[in-house]
Amino acid sequence: MSKYFSGKLSSIEPYVPGEQPRDKKYIKLNTNESPFPPSPEVVKALDEAQVSSLNLYSDPTAKELVDAIAEYYSVCPENVFVGNGSDEVLAFVFYAWGENGFTGPELSYGFYPVFSQFFCVDYTQIDLKEDLSIELSDYYNVKNSIIFANPNAQTGLYITPEKIEELVSKVNGVVVVDEAYIDFGGESVVPLTKKYPNLVVTGTLSKSRNLAGARIGFAIGNKELINDLNTLKFSFNPYNINRLSIIAGAKAMEDKEYFRKCVTTVAETREFTKKALSDIGFTCTDSLSNFILAKTEKLSGKELYLALKERGILVRYLGDEIIKEYVRITIGSKEQMITLIDTIKTILSEVEK
Amino acid sequence: MSKYFSGKLSSIEPYVPGEQPRDKKYIKLNTNESPFPPSPEVVKALDEAQVSSLNLYSDPTAKELVDAIAEYYSVCPENVFVGNGSDEVLAFVFYAWGENGFTGPELSYGFYPVFSQFFCVDYTQIDLKEDLSIELSDYYNVKNSIIFANPNAQTGLYITPEKIEELVSKVNGVVVVDEAYIDFGGESVVPLTKKYPNLVVTGTLSKSRNLAGARIGFAIGNKELINDLNTLKFSFNPYNINRLSIIAGAKAMEDKEYFRKCVTTVAETREFTKKALSDIGFTCTDSLSNFILAKTEKLSGKELYLALKERGILVRYLGDEIIKEYVRITIGSKEQMITLIDTIKTILSEVEK
Repeated sequence: MSKYFSGKLSSIEPYVPGEQPRDKKYIKLNTNESPFPPSPEVVKALDEAQVSSLNLYSDPTAKELVDAIAEYYSVCPENVFVGNGSDEVLAFVFYAWGENGFTGPELSYGFYPVFSQFFCVDYTQIDLKEDLSIELSDYYNVKNSIIFANPNAQTGLYITPEKIEELVSKVNGVVVVDEAYIDFGGESVVPLTKKYPNLVVTGTLSKSRNLAGARIGFAIGNKELINDLNTLKFSFNPYNINRLSIIAGAKAMEDKEYFRKCVTTVAETREFTKKALSDIGFTCTDSLSNFILAKTEKLSGKELYLALKERGILVRYLGDEIIKEYVRITIGSKEQMITLIDTIKTILSEVEK
Repeated sequence: MSKYFSGKLSSIEPYVPGEQPRDKKYIKLNTNESPFPPSPEVVKALDEAQVSSLNLYSDPTAKELVDAIAEYYSVCPENVFVGNGSDEVLAFVFYAWGENGFTGPELSYGFYPVFSQFFCVDYTQIDLKEDLSIELSDYYNVKNSIIFANPNAQTGLYITPEKIEELVSKVNGVVVVDEAYIDFGGESVVPLTKKYPNLVVTGTLSKSRNLAGARIGFAIGNKELINDLNTLKFSFNPYNINRLSIIAGAKAMEDKEYFRKCVTTVAETREFTKKALSDIGFTCTDSLSNFILAKTEKLSGKELYLALKERGILVRYLGDEIIKEYVRITIGSKEQMITLIDTIKTILSEVEK
């Protein structure tokens, strides 16, 4: 840190993304990417003519992408905000509505506390239940803004729209539901944004739309809340989404058939993996996401992570106290999961020797 | 603005980018884009295989791009920061080193005061001289951070490295030189960053590298200052540059021959345009950039802007008090500039009737 660095930022602890090894080839099950390429429509659309137009700025309103997201969710374009990945969207969320602080679960997307630090926003964490689930009635008396992921990050545990509606109707502050993982088995609460002016839903095209590398996130809510986010965007980085990602995102939203095929396959592979791991004595969270949180009594989370890495498989060891026995495993292709399970069996048999 | 919006942001005035019309076809000379496509190497590199890999996250360190920029400027990779357009880079600059405020010219890139508002940073403006140039000796006693564009935004007027070195050696705060337009005729002060630990140079691939639509900006400075920017990036949006832009940017930096051909052509066309406009009574700033600021006594800046727009040519009318008689004209292709000059002649002849 230089001597010129702002004092109020000096204690900031940056987010640590999952490893992105450049050299060694791993089976990468650590950052919740999709094992499938983007829709063929995306590949077709990003042709030479589009690349040759990169000398021109992107549309700062990203109209084509906003329209496609609005159409998919049956909302108006004025209810949709788009950002350079959902990280940028969430950062703006914390700045826009964080004056009186945010409240969220003790375990969720690890970036929430970092955004809070970045924008000097108070962040209060509420304990999970012993089974690692979020108890929304614990939030009924919260006076500031609320954020949680559904399914929750790290655990994959899911809360029904009925329970979320009950919370949203009881509190006066903004409630942000981060639906990064909703498409793998949950039901979105986007329809409730029409009824509740304090509800915002965020999403990403990184997971279920196979576009992590294109960096596209969005928020859906009533027009005034979306205006807030646009005010921040146009005061920070108006051309926040590049030309090719605008096209890629729009095409990915439009190709519903490919999308459904991908998320269905991931959900099936997840259930297959859960069962296979249970069969060899693992405890897994009942995740509805594209990852599972799994533990065995034979090895600590860190030991399992290291043993797998040594054998060419990257999973995520998060290290938070309440899940320190667990590793988080992204659902890859069925072949990758079979290799994972075989490798775990080998590791366990060596431990038992 | 919603009732939840942070009070300290309520008076923020977002930046207004130049018009990006989607429907009507204009000759677009309003946002300083390059009239040339990106390097053929960029077009070749962004092939189907790369698009098909968009399901994977981008490298958060953007190593390939950082290395290419470092190589071009003969600095180490640790001296290079990259962002989602130079807007993101400049935003971080204001947040990182703005605790005691920033000082800049009364007329420069219009986003500087907006970044200041966004991050609640004081921004002091120093008058230009009557000829619209920046007098750096006016900054010798500045106690906080300093920022200016060279060549300056809007005017295109250039300051030599010798004068900048004199300033940097005299002040104790950070000096940020925004070299968005340096490649069209100026000499970069990047070499001085090795000598002065308080000097940061920012740049963009939007103009001279023909990649406005890819959103790539950078900063070069000593390791500690670059670390400051990375601390902010990893606390805001670690994967800030998408996969395809990392590749495109690296290829564009590497293709020095195409780059030189493009900037030379733009510089020649600029001088041609200056002369042609002078010949019909215009006053132009002695711009070393890819735009010129031009005025005629026969029409106000706004009138000329509107008359050109009506005839299918978009230039930029900025409206700041000291340049309200001017329009800013991006240097396009020679054919476009000939059309522009012919159209201006027609407009002037109609005024004279």
